[in-house]
Amino acid sequence: MNKHLISAADLSKDDALLILDTAEELAAVSERSIKKLPTLRGRTVVNLFFEDSTRTRISFEAAAKRLSADVINFSAKGSSVSKGESLKDTALTLEAMGADAVVIRHGASGAPHRLANWVRGSVVNAGDGTHEHPTQALLDAFSMRRRLGSLEGRKITIVGDVLHSRVARSNVLLLATLGADVTLVAPPTLLPVSVGTWPCEVSYDLDAVLPKSDVVMMLRVQKERMNAAYFPSEREYSRRYGLDRDRFAKMPDDAIVMHPGPMNRGMEIAADVADSPRSTIVEQVANGVTTRMAVLYLLLGGESAQ
Amino acid sequence: MNKHLISAADLSKDDALLILDTAEELAAVSERSIKKLPTLRGRTVVNLFFEDSTRTRISFEAAAKRLSADVINFSAKGSSVSKGESLKDTALTLEAMGADAVVIRHGASGAPHRLANWVRGSVVNAGDGTHEHPTQALLDAFSMRRRLGSLEGRKITIVGDVLHSRVARSNVLLLATLGADVTLVAPPTLLPVSVGTWPCEVSYDLDAVLPKSDVVMMLRVQKERMNAAYFPSEREYSRRYGLDRDRFAKMPDDAIVMHPGPMNRGMEIAADVADSPRSTIVEQVANGVTTRMAVLYLLLGGESAQ
Amino acid sequence: MNKHLISAADLSKDDALLILDTAEELAAVSERSIKKLPTLRGRTVVNLFFEDSTRTRISFEAAAKRLSADVINFSAKGSSVSKGESLKDTALTLEAMGADAVVIRHGASGAPHRLANWVRGSVVNAGDGTHEHPTQALLDAFSMRRRLGSLEGRKITIVGDVLHSRVARSNVLLLATLGADVTLVAPPTLLPVSVGTWPCEVSYDLDAVLPKSDVVMMLRVQKERMNAAYFPSEREYSRRYGLDRDRFAKMPDDAIVMHPGPMNRGMEIAADVADSPRSTIVEQVANGVTTRMAVLYLLLGGESAQ
Repeated sequence: MNKHLISAADLSKDDALLILDTAEELAAVSERSIKKLPTLRGRTVVNLFFEDSTRTRISFEAAAKRLSADVINFSAKGSSVSKGESLKDTALTLEAMGADAVVIRHGASGAPHRLANWVRGSVVNAGDGTHEHPTQALLDAFSMRRRLGSLEGRKITIVGDVLHSRVARSNVLLLATLGADVTLVAPPTLLPVSVGTWPCEVSYDLDAVLPKSDVVMMLRVQKERMNAAYFPSEREYSRRYGLDRDRFAKMPDDAIVMHPGPMNRGMEIAADVADSPRSTIVEQVANGVTTRMAVLYLLLGGESAQ
Repeated sequence: MNKHLISAADLSKDDALLILDTAEELAAVSERSIKKLPTLRGRTVVNLFFEDSTRTRISFEAAAKRLSADVINFSAKGSSVSKGESLKDTALTLEAMGADAVVIRHGASGAPHRLANWVRGSVVNAGDGTHEHPTQALLDAFSMRRRLGSLEGRKITIVGDVLHSRVARSNVLLLATLGADVTLVAPPTLLPVSVGTWPCEVSYDLDAVLPKSDVVMMLRVQKERMNAAYFPSEREYSRRYGLDRDRFAKMPDDAIVMHPGPMNRGMEIAADVADSPRSTIVEQVANGVTTRMAVLYLLLGGESAQ
Repeated sequence: MNKHLISAADLSKDDALLILDTAEELAAVSERSIKKLPTLRGRTVVNLFFEDSTRTRISFEAAAKRLSADVINFSAKGSSVSKGESLKDTALTLEAMGADAVVIRHGASGAPHRLANWVRGSVVNAGDGTHEHPTQALLDAFSMRRRLGSLEGRKITIVGDVLHSRVARSNVLLLATLGADVTLVAPPTLLPVSVGTWPCEVSYDLDAVLPKSDVVMMLRVQKERMNAAYFPSEREYSRRYGLDRDRFAKMPDDAIVMHPGPMNRGMEIAADVADSPRSTIVEQVANGVTTRMAVLYLLLGGESAQ
């Protein structure tokens, strides 16, 4: 495995399966009520968040603490960054402080990649611009595997604002590596121009795709982006791309529903669909901690991680 | 004892005495310079604060850390809450992350009660709207007991803005359970309409009540509420309801003065009264950590908590 | 040694050497890949920051955690301070919570001194107004010693906005104690009137001083202070007082360049000078953690601290 986790594209199939299998083992340990492992005792994990994302930050914080690492939260708000310090100087600071891993969330696509040039520790991309969010893709894959078994040949449909979604991009890359067949469903204005080069199909007709989906993953609608340039109105979006009860009924009986959260209940997903037993939304959160434990374990401390 | 601590009304006399006795034991341990106990090693306490309250937050944080729990601070500022995520989704997130206890401060009365329906862990109310603040009442009772012994039959006077005070409500409920006689002193505009149903007396004449009080607890004046609707002016309030040196002299010689902090020195309480040896204001803060240790210990880990 | 570290002026030569030697030992331990020492297990260090300074805060946090102390971060934003609580009440709160050390950053010169009157624990000044920043001076001295050996008789030049710099004042005091010869170079408008009483020389001609300097320490330009009252323009400042490549060439071959960070690259220091092997800027950051470990160790736990 690489020393860093910057992009889902960097993971070979073996790498990805190693992470998922390790997460499976950690979940088994956790189910035996062992809440804390000594693996990373004395190691320091820095959460370097240039964008607010409490959910992702505390997921990594919980993961690191369960492995007995020390965690230092570095929020760019009120940091020297606002005094004009460059990302490079921040990186050298963290480096000098002996960070073993830096978990970075940044508004600019590519920032984690640049950071990795400047620090000796491992860099984990916790979301960069509209680019990637690889641990989200890993936790999604882990959640699917726990419900459905192997992802080989599975039909996975991702619905919504793909253009602004780092979740969608990372998922498409990782799922293709794992042998799944991915279809994106989105209004044409909410697809990136590069989508033709992605390893997936594209459809504009959600109702046609639902009956042959093993997994339907709804993306979050960023309401501030709902304007004439992208889409006429929230109501129209919800009518054409929302997963309501009728659409849910069109899915195969054992197909599952996913959402990376936070949801707009009643907008891209109906409340009772979100709360259905076939929804993995709550377990995705728990699986996020487990999967991030696996990533930190393999990058920092695992024997098999070299 | 209940699994949660939402309201002082939920505590039976036995529950309350168990908490106070446990706090007494923990204080004794602490006085033997043992600063850290292994009791909650591997357990996770989440501080979920939708309102700023650094004092209460660090009191719970210090309490949890002294019991060796891991603490994750979740401030609603910059959280997904501001992206439209509901309290329920936040709760499910924390639940999924394996929080053993959630300490919640929220601007809406009743939020901790709702949270308790959604999580498996224990919920501790750290202040909800104008409703309750039960650990404040417990630390106040603990502080009184350390000074005065049993509270049975003690005369306790609570003075000030009862209408907006969750501290007052929780104190009245707990002190009545513990057998004390409580009198509220406040301007009529700063008493809730429901006060007639509370287990206490009401008076408008502070000077008449002082000579027969064992404890005088001054409430914080929320200056932003000092307007014509409630009270004509700060000066007038201070003159009629402030505890100055002259009024202090009317109290019995062994009566004590309390304040939940932060104080407006010179407003509801004179500086030299606040600093008098008969003031418990500083020890209330230390007792807050001890009492919260007892609550977390009994809810999460204590053998006697069954 | 004193119980507190408020001012570089409080350190005798023996005190200062003890801190530097202790830091040297801690650095040696750290180089043997021992990242965590049990020295301060069960002790609590509070970071009480009334001004934002993430760099200094996480440096102290990393130092305390490497010594196994518990760390509680108390930011004045959103604290009771904004509800009108005085520094004294905050101090009593921390005191009551059992803080063994309070690391304070405050906008008002003298605040750490006042705090020390109110708490039993140790107070460490992490920067107060334009007054002092003694741990910065200690880490600078430590960085110089690691490069140059003893500071006795060394020529040290400090360049820039001395008037607003607590770094400059603490450095002048400590370096004089350690036997170094300090020269300040600054525009006359950016020197304090009291500078005549400081144990150092003053010059207005950087180019004349550079060839006889063992160390050149550039101060951060606070751009918001670059106005007609102090200096005509950034460009003019940079031309007369910036350390560019030509000036760097005038320094002796083994002289080093320092900066407390965060830098304005291209303003007070050229990027390639900052990145030169003779720059200590990155190691200053790492040395900050080591030096602060030494300070906390000696104030709180060290046998030799008596």
